[in-house]
Amino acid sequence: MTDLLRTRPASTPAMLAVFDDDTTIAHALTFEAVLAKAKAAQGLIGIEVAEAIVRACNQCSVNAAELADEAALAGTLAIPLIKRLRVPLDDGAADALHKGATSQDVADTILMLQAKKAKSLLLTDLDRIAVALAAIARQRAGTAAVGRTLLQDALPVGFGLRVAQWYAGIVDATRRLRIEISATAKLQFGGAAGARAGLRGKGAAVAAHMAESLGLACDVPWHSRRVGVSAIAAALGIVIGALAKMARDISLLSQNAVREVREPVVSGRGGSSAMAHKHNPTGCQSALSAALRAPGLVASILSGLPAEEERGIGGWQAEGPALTELFLLAAGSAEAMATVAEGLDIDEGAIARNLRAAGIGDDIGESSAIVAAILDNYRNDG
Amino acid sequence: MTDLLRTRPASTPAMLAVFDDDTTIAHALTFEAVLAKAKAAQGLIGIEVAEAIVRACNQCSVNAAELADEAALAGTLAIPLIKRLRVPLDDGAADALHKGATSQDVADTILMLQAKKAKSLLLTDLDRIAVALAAIARQRAGTAAVGRTLLQDALPVGFGLRVAQWYAGIVDATRRLRIEISATAKLQFGGAAGARAGLRGKGAAVAAHMAESLGLACDVPWHSRRVGVSAIAAALGIVIGALAKMARDISLLSQNAVREVREPVVSGRGGSSAMAHKHNPTGCQSALSAALRAPGLVASILSGLPAEEERGIGGWQAEGPALTELFLLAAGSAEAMATVAEGLDIDEGAIARNLRAAGIGDDIGESSAIVAAILDNYRNDG
Amino acid sequence: MTDLLRTRPASTPAMLAVFDDDTTIAHALTFEAVLAKAKAAQGLIGIEVAEAIVRACNQCSVNAAELADEAALAGTLAIPLIKRLRVPLDDGAADALHKGATSQDVADTILMLQAKKAKSLLLTDLDRIAVALAAIARQRAGTAAVGRTLLQDALPVGFGLRVAQWYAGIVDATRRLRIEISATAKLQFGGAAGARAGLRGKGAAVAAHMAESLGLACDVPWHSRRVGVSAIAAALGIVIGALAKMARDISLLSQNAVREVREPVVSGRGGSSAMAHKHNPTGCQSALSAALRAPGLVASILSGLPAEEERGIGGWQAEGPALTELFLLAAGSAEAMATVAEGLDIDEGAIARNLRAAGIGDDIGESSAIVAAILDNYRNDG
Amino acid sequence: MTDLLRTRPASTPAMLAVFDDDTTIAHALTFEAVLAKAKAAQGLIGIEVAEAIVRACNQCSVNAAELADEAALAGTLAIPLIKRLRVPLDDGAADALHKGATSQDVADTILMLQAKKAKSLLLTDLDRIAVALAAIARQRAGTAAVGRTLLQDALPVGFGLRVAQWYAGIVDATRRLRIEISATAKLQFGGAAGARAGLRGKGAAVAAHMAESLGLACDVPWHSRRVGVSAIAAALGIVIGALAKMARDISLLSQNAVREVREPVVSGRGGSSAMAHKHNPTGCQSALSAALRAPGLVASILSGLPAEEERGIGGWQAEGPALTELFLLAAGSAEAMATVAEGLDIDEGAIARNLRAAGIGDDIGESSAIVAAILDNYRNDG
Repeated sequence: MTDLLRTRPASTPAMLAVFDDDTTIAHALTFEAVLAKAKAAQGLIGIEVAEAIVRACNQCSVNAAELADEAALAGTLAIPLIKRLRVPLDDGAADALHKGATSQDVADTILMLQAKKAKSLLLTDLDRIAVALAAIARQRAGTAAVGRTLLQDALPVGFGLRVAQWYAGIVDATRRLRIEISATAKLQFGGAAGARAGLRGKGAAVAAHMAESLGLACDVPWHSRRVGVSAIAAALGIVIGALAKMARDISLLSQNAVREVREPVVSGRGGSSAMAHKHNPTGCQSALSAALRAPGLVASILSGLPAEEERGIGGWQAEGPALTELFLLAAGSAEAMATVAEGLDIDEGAIARNLRAAGIGDDIGESSAIVAAILDNYRNDG
Repeated sequence: MTDLLRTRPASTPAMLAVFDDDTTIAHALTFEAVLAKAKAAQGLIGIEVAEAIVRACNQCSVNAAELADEAALAGTLAIPLIKRLRVPLDDGAADALHKGATSQDVADTILMLQAKKAKSLLLTDLDRIAVALAAIARQRAGTAAVGRTLLQDALPVGFGLRVAQWYAGIVDATRRLRIEISATAKLQFGGAAGARAGLRGKGAAVAAHMAESLGLACDVPWHSRRVGVSAIAAALGIVIGALAKMARDISLLSQNAVREVREPVVSGRGGSSAMAHKHNPTGCQSALSAALRAPGLVASILSGLPAEEERGIGGWQAEGPALTELFLLAAGSAEAMATVAEGLDIDEGAIARNLRAAGIGDDIGESSAIVAAILDNYRNDG
Repeated sequence: MTDLLRTRPASTPAMLAVFDDDTTIAHALTFEAVLAKAKAAQGLIGIEVAEAIVRACNQCSVNAAELADEAALAGTLAIPLIKRLRVPLDDGAADALHKGATSQDVADTILMLQAKKAKSLLLTDLDRIAVALAAIARQRAGTAAVGRTLLQDALPVGFGLRVAQWYAGIVDATRRLRIEISATAKLQFGGAAGARAGLRGKGAAVAAHMAESLGLACDVPWHSRRVGVSAIAAALGIVIGALAKMARDISLLSQNAVREVREPVVSGRGGSSAMAHKHNPTGCQSALSAALRAPGLVASILSGLPAEEERGIGGWQAEGPALTELFLLAAGSAEAMATVAEGLDIDEGAIARNLRAAGIGDDIGESSAIVAAILDNYRNDG
Repeated sequence: MTDLLRTRPASTPAMLAVFDDDTTIAHALTFEAVLAKAKAAQGLIGIEVAEAIVRACNQCSVNAAELADEAALAGTLAIPLIKRLRVPLDDGAADALHKGATSQDVADTILMLQAKKAKSLLLTDLDRIAVALAAIARQRAGTAAVGRTLLQDALPVGFGLRVAQWYAGIVDATRRLRIEISATAKLQFGGAAGARAGLRGKGAAVAAHMAESLGLACDVPWHSRRVGVSAIAAALGIVIGALAKMARDISLLSQNAVREVREPVVSGRGGSSAMAHKHNPTGCQSALSAALRAPGLVASILSGLPAEEERGIGGWQAEGPALTELFLLAAGSAEAMATVAEGLDIDEGAIARNLRAAGIGDDIGESSAIVAAILDNYRNDG
């Protein structure tokens, strides 16, 4: 049972893979294996016990659909997965498995591993956009164009100034996303109620070992404190909005009566099932569609902040799917706009023609200086 | 590439199937076949041409993943699907295929077919809940219990009165959902710009034929008018909220210090990966989680209402996934709460004990009369 | 301390008055007076006691700012108001005052009185729009114009068909709003925990008397069941969206490069602080701005549905301000678009010119028939 | 016409004053005066002209209600205000007034002046909370209490660990708010289309002068780039959510059957209009209510990001009221929770009793060490 016709058009195959069942299960198995090794390193369990657990994790082959059915009933992925992992283990290893951890430790850590990978995918496309827009902004800073406010012709602006504003918004939003994911993508390890009980005082050491192995930062348990996840969600929502600002303008500038720009021609893109003559701005459509879905997803995650005591009922469980969707949408939007930015077809003739028709002169004020200042102030750090 | 670990826990297999790739493709193929037959019936194309198209639709076997990749690029499902359908057709049939329709006609009609099917699934579980709650309300109308406001003990209420209020909310929300889906689940057929051009004045007749074949109501084109879709979304959001009201109360009443009710014991449900003694209210968790995700989804769909002219850029495209998610969440919530309602474990001893401890007497006022009036005023129409 | 610069531009003076402090206090005083009279009519208190209470309500002069300060602390308006009302009363009347009711009874009933009044204000402007749009649609049904999809020229449509779609969306949304407010604008009267305790079994009779006096429908208590309020909120959100659809199209059609329509010239409207030549579509701006704010407000109200037991902590209290804001925004939007609809300046020359430039012929298909069907199917019931 | 009964209970008088009509008008007049002085300093207008403008600004007495009426029609506050300011000016000064600026420059700069002031108000109360919670966390780190997950008794935790998690969430959210406001609270000065035209190349110098006078940072125009405003909104939403997390837990711990904590007794707070025995957690109610309204407001502001070209139609106009409301709600929530935090009544007897009743032992694991690490890692910078 797949739903690619619903999920794929708004995202990218690479980002979908970050959050698909196979990756999720692989992360969960790694968590349990790494936990066993960390406990062995701290003398909490025997080395052979840890090795048996690691082996069980390595050899475990799970049917995702069955696991999902059981997870639906159990309320978490960890419960049915651990049941499976215990099958080949003797009693001692079965007892040691997962001990000291709780379902949320697994789920939160998986989500942070995914967020970290997703960040690197996103940054690649956002960097492509920034590089392409900076070049256009610099090149067209002095090209006088109609500036429009409230959809009415206003005064002239440098065409590159408009592009520089897209650039600055996207670079600013990217910077925030990078910071927020770096600050939050930490191991979660707190055990049943977040006190790291049952580990003979070695909880912090186990956590440090695990974080190191998983390539995540280490911190105190944050299970009941979802501010970081909300901040990632908001940062994604802002990135999506900044990309959609660019898309909005390009779609308006692409109107037949304006035609100052066009999305690049990409095979298979922008056609119409009914009209062969059309050249649809489908890259912009992706970005604008994402921007309609993102704010509600951010709101959902913010709504979950007032979670109940040591683990909320409902709020925490709503976060994962909503955050995933934000990453999927951001990826689809960033990839679409990267293609658009790199191939944007700008028609200087049309720009000049529209400006003459507007009858507003051609004084673009300090457009060039502002463009230079923007490119200087808002550095794209790749 | 599946994502069942993300989608399945919040929904039901039956509802996931309504919106999965196979069903979506099947509906799209049916649309094209029915369109051909309707045009033939109106003499717009030859009967053999229609038969060739129908055959192509019947024999078309599509790889959903490939189709999704192409749809992502094209911006719609219809474009790559039609390309495939044309392969076995001669030029005349290839030309006749899809003619008079547009991508949005296909997408909107599919969504309405799915909404109609989804409605019947939902109504079944909502009816189970209403029947179960009505019985509890009637039976316990006179059982004096602590009424609580702002989470503080207030004055006594009949235990059944609280349940009757859940019942009335759910029945009222169900009624609205039934009405809104019935009012909106219509064929969409308008062609490229919604004027039914190129059909020699037979557009209305073709539409009537198609609607009849598809089991949908017939209406004028509504492609650029999304009020009905928004109303379905809002009705789903309200159903999810009404179910979560019941879940909120049950989760509070299930607290160890209160223990007036417990979710029924279901094998595989409510355990803890770390604590064998726990009996988690995971049915309520599903419903409460859905209620955190739904408002944002409704907001997204409302945000798309001010769509651009004859087909919006972004708004329309955001609707399908968001509406689907609302149906999936409503199904997961309704099924979970149906199980809870039918098996709710009520502890009259605890209810009485808590009431004594509250020291607020036992005057439940007109609770029984109000319960009777509610059951009378809010009829569950199955 | 006023905030008219923030609230007034998005609304109308008449709608602001429905929800201002004076009106709110007047409704609260009426509630208490009517409650006293109803209890006297049922023999629960003496007639002189009721008269004393009514007199106190009539003579009570409240400083809204002081009352608001105290209400902020108390958590409800009723507590400080009742304290004031008690001042001139003897002990018996002071004790009888408000008895049988609770703060939420007052607040919910006020909100419903306001909703009812707000409905009639809104319907007047919505009717103006429907009448004006129906006339345009009928008149221009056959005027060939460029149909545009994804902001690209697509195929011709009757200009009146586009207008008829606006009309149908607004009429449909208006119908839903009328139904939902009628269904929900009921007296709330349940007492402390919603069981109508302490009224010697006369609660239902008292409620009936009060409802009659207040001009509201009577029902069982609905304090803990917020489905109706959510449905009003959603209906308002849909009305605002339907108006913004019209505004979106008009703002696009008003672009200098398109110029098929213009907002009517209204003195003091649409100027620019920097550019004398501009004619801004500020009516459309109001409607589009409202449509950006409404979905989040609807989401907030939906989020409050899973309220805790007999009176939630937080959810119920968030509803009033959010619902009020939706009414204020709907009023501002409806009045702005009524003015636009009634004076819309349509340039048939520009329409024809754009169509020629598009090079897509002039076949508008069944536009006229569809317009006729829309006007027939979607009746504006004033 | 006031609406304090709607706005005051959710906010504070000090924060309401930051955004009220008088303050807004004062800021607008300051903007125009400072602009005149800056232009004079750059030799763009004569000193006497600047002095005449400054005098007009100082002497201007505006009726806020009338101004609001005209602003509603004009679409901006600046247009009717400038009209008034011109009355006493001669033609030269009247012409020089506002020149080089546009309505949005005024509105955005006012909003940033308000955001800066609002930040300092908020930080004061947030600091009070952090100080109070840190003390409780340190003191009760070793107090064994029932940890609860999914509203069920789970395993013991140090009572102070739960409080430390509230603390960390609030400190983290506060840090983000401080950063985002500092980064965004800049002068906006771009003129009609954002190119600083008509200032003979002195636009940047004029801006620098103005920023200095207004106590704001200086930057390139950001009128068409709303990422910073969205980031402030999101940061406010996260602060409100972090406060509500604390409120949720306190309201649950205050339930009669749990009674581990109580809100402090404050005169006029927490009573009931119907039940004298009640002690309602109305501070928590304020915070939880704010948290239901905030996510939708954040979503509205994010929805406006894809604004049209040099000034959007609708999106920008929706931002101000929504951002204001977020500040108002944050203030109400922070003040309420500061009072709660400073006076929180903790019952160690009840904590111990509940723990014994839970029968889950008293091993609080590494609670004390985690508390110490949290207080060390999450420094409250006042």
